[in-house]
Amino acid sequence: MQTLDRNTSLIDALKARRLKLATLVDFPVLLWSGQSSPRNFRANTFPFRASSHFLYFAGLPLENAVIRLEGGRLTLFIDEASPASALWHGETPKRDDIAAAIGATEAYPLSELKPEKNERGEEWLVTPSTWTNGAATIGVQDGKTHANQYIMCQRNVFRDAGRIEGIDLELARAIVSLRMIHDEFALTELRKAAMVSIAAHKAGMAATRCASVEAEIRAAMERVIIANGMTCAYSSIVTVHGEVLHNDQYHHAIGSGDLLLADVGAETASGWASDITRTWAVSGKFSSTQRSLYDVVLAAHDACIAAIRPGVEYRDLHLLAARTIAAGLVDLGILRGQVEDLVDRDVHALFFPHGVGHILGLDVHDMEDLGDLAGYETGRTRSDRFGLNYLRLDRPLQAGMVVTIEPGFYQVPAILQDPERRAKYHDIVDWDRLAQFADVRGIRIEDDVLVTETGAEVLTAALPTEIEAIEQLVQS
Amino acid sequence: MQTLDRNTSLIDALKARRLKLATLVDFPVLLWSGQSSPRNFRANTFPFRASSHFLYFAGLPLENAVIRLEGGRLTLFIDEASPASALWHGETPKRDDIAAAIGATEAYPLSELKPEKNERGEEWLVTPSTWTNGAATIGVQDGKTHANQYIMCQRNVFRDAGRIEGIDLELARAIVSLRMIHDEFALTELRKAAMVSIAAHKAGMAATRCASVEAEIRAAMERVIIANGMTCAYSSIVTVHGEVLHNDQYHHAIGSGDLLLADVGAETASGWASDITRTWAVSGKFSSTQRSLYDVVLAAHDACIAAIRPGVEYRDLHLLAARTIAAGLVDLGILRGQVEDLVDRDVHALFFPHGVGHILGLDVHDMEDLGDLAGYETGRTRSDRFGLNYLRLDRPLQAGMVVTIEPGFYQVPAILQDPERRAKYHDIVDWDRLAQFADVRGIRIEDDVLVTETGAEVLTAALPTEIEAIEQLVQS
Repeated sequence: MQTLDRNTSLIDALKARRLKLATLVDFPVLLWSGQSSPRNFRANTFPFRASSHFLYFAGLPLENAVIRLEGGRLTLFIDEASPASALWHGETPKRDDIAAAIGATEAYPLSELKPEKNERGEEWLVTPSTWTNGAATIGVQDGKTHANQYIMCQRNVFRDAGRIEGIDLELARAIVSLRMIHDEFALTELRKAAMVSIAAHKAGMAATRCASVEAEIRAAMERVIIANGMTCAYSSIVTVHGEVLHNDQYHHAIGSGDLLLADVGAETASGWASDITRTWAVSGKFSSTQRSLYDVVLAAHDACIAAIRPGVEYRDLHLLAARTIAAGLVDLGILRGQVEDLVDRDVHALFFPHGVGHILGLDVHDMEDLGDLAGYETGRTRSDRFGLNYLRLDRPLQAGMVVTIEPGFYQVPAILQDPERRAKYHDIVDWDRLAQFADVRGIRIEDDVLVTETGAEVLTAALPTEIEAIEQLVQS
Repeated sequence: MQTLDRNTSLIDALKARRLKLATLVDFPVLLWSGQSSPRNFRANTFPFRASSHFLYFAGLPLENAVIRLEGGRLTLFIDEASPASALWHGETPKRDDIAAAIGATEAYPLSELKPEKNERGEEWLVTPSTWTNGAATIGVQDGKTHANQYIMCQRNVFRDAGRIEGIDLELARAIVSLRMIHDEFALTELRKAAMVSIAAHKAGMAATRCASVEAEIRAAMERVIIANGMTCAYSSIVTVHGEVLHNDQYHHAIGSGDLLLADVGAETASGWASDITRTWAVSGKFSSTQRSLYDVVLAAHDACIAAIRPGVEYRDLHLLAARTIAAGLVDLGILRGQVEDLVDRDVHALFFPHGVGHILGLDVHDMEDLGDLAGYETGRTRSDRFGLNYLRLDRPLQAGMVVTIEPGFYQVPAILQDPERRAKYHDIVDWDRLAQFADVRGIRIEDDVLVTETGAEVLTAALPTEIEAIEQLVQS
């Protein structure tokens, strides 16, 4: 973070967010950005990622900074770089210039936040500074800053969602309600992330026919993200083993008859994420079995998006996807029975064992650092039902939310070879028929969708989902 | 880490390392691999990087594992994945299979390491387990595992090099002496990392003439690293502002008259690093001023490599680079005076303010987690002298060490505009003459060099350093 562009739309957006927050809480708020985490030694760190709550109100990925929000006012706490750091890291902006860039009314060094020391020189369980006294906060991810939060706030700052309490819980709920509904500034960033992710997927498709291992396709995709000055919002999944849902391996050879599943999303410099999955045939041509199952997943994807509008329960979208997939598998002769019965018995979850999606924003699973506080409407908890317990979002949709829609079909050995499940569903699944679809290990189709006043806008619509268009991109 | 290739050369190498360690210490040793660090929420982590000390003796990047070394025996502690994890992460190897792959004689779950609890159910300051009692260890980087080390070992495990003491210090010194001299297995990995890094630099050169911002060149380089199943050993530096030594920005437009400095290195899957810097003309053609200064840096680079052999003091290589650069700047009319006087007065450090290199191995600055314990011969400490205080290595070379040689020339505003320094060197620097070289902001040339019995082998020699060859690669 060396250069500062004066950006009045950022300043205005941040001010509007602060003013909204001030209508929701009547106590001061302190948000830490965090520090970079060491990789193998202290000076060799992972790239710095600021806390998303900080980014939402501060706009810039400032390392080791704190903001204080009270009654719409913004106060910045950050130390200026040492003169020696100019040699290694170049000239860095002055504290006051950073403050001006984010619309802060005042700015101080971090030492202002320190509590008084007691007569023995200890700085714990003594008087907090006037800046931190009575302020709510949210625990950051990195341990070093989290330990600082304990000292500065003179109390435990819990990161475990189940333990957040008091004004910290009130603050978390207020932030959830704000971050849930995206403003124009956020949407602009989400659209930028989507555009770069789309280009990355197209590059991956185009690179496939010359590639021999998964890593080469991943590399072609991430190249686009890096070239556009963005980072990956999460560890890319680029694999011919799509049945491993969070596959983080890239060494498999790709065969000409394989499907390749790529779940890759970019994140803008200020932290806004995209999350796209496409599945394509390595050869550029889907087999007839691959085509059949792909179209089942696509039908579920399209049905969910068509059903999106304010007031709709996201859980109902999940069940709509389940029904659509079950119906498709009945049509293909893989399942037998009535669709409603099949879904009631969770048979679809044999092949679609995860939720249909999640909220998206500054985090790819937005606000998941707060557990299910954002994903689940107050009073609701995760279901015990197979296939529903991985549902990350269970609340009615509102205009301004961005959700992913990502149904899938997978042949997971750990599920399909499980003797208990095979016994339970022996009358429903035609295993011989299923065996004819052995060239499909995993298919997922995922888009990012903005809930609008009247329905839905697919932010990632510029990347096709239909087989013919995908085949063309792979063959291009 | 899903697939395990049975690799007898790995097993043999690990055994030889253990047996050597057993000749150096007479107490048991516990080494933790560490856990992945969360990025913006717990489930969204940075890629896992195992502790280098663990990797040296365990060979595989096992997450959340511990090894115990005693008398040449290897005991592995690791938990097996839960059945549910197969859905998300695929089938993972069994504990006994992992143990067999690294030559461990026995393997247990992590709970074996836990101390006895006291009557109140507390597990601190009670009796350590028989596995951990009396064992030395080294603190890992991630905070969560570090806290575990405290519990398991029932004492503070210091990560601050200045505070490591007792058997932990003995262990650190023993490991330094082992890791300092690379065995054949390590050299094979270092050569692989070098080959991929060379390909990355060639790709960066070839991508330059079509690029408009630094990020595009970085992307072309990192694509090669990712495609080969490796990671970046450190944050890439790819910049037209080479005067910022650790520049981590990539947004600058590249001008046709600029030099581009790229310091990019790959790391193999088992952690072995490479570290290469090249500087090239964006247009494919160096200007005459760029050419003159490049050849000064190259002369220093070549002189240092030619001087490498066992017994030579690395600090003397640094001073040789300093003299070569000073002599070159006298020839160009930028400095006036006798070379020895200039170096005695640290004038070269105005333009070459860092050390000439460092040791390389599992870490790009090898074993820097131990402070200067590895870099500095016992009894030596960092110099206060400008230009020498950033020297990371000060010990006599031994056959089997791998060091970088990376002289440079930079016009750092923070140094050259400093009124004190301008006054101090007013009789030595011809500022008007220097101004004629304004199209050179930063040049560095860095190779990885193995010290052999008779001299040196440049592991990165397949990437040219001469201007003509580099110009050809950029124009290709």
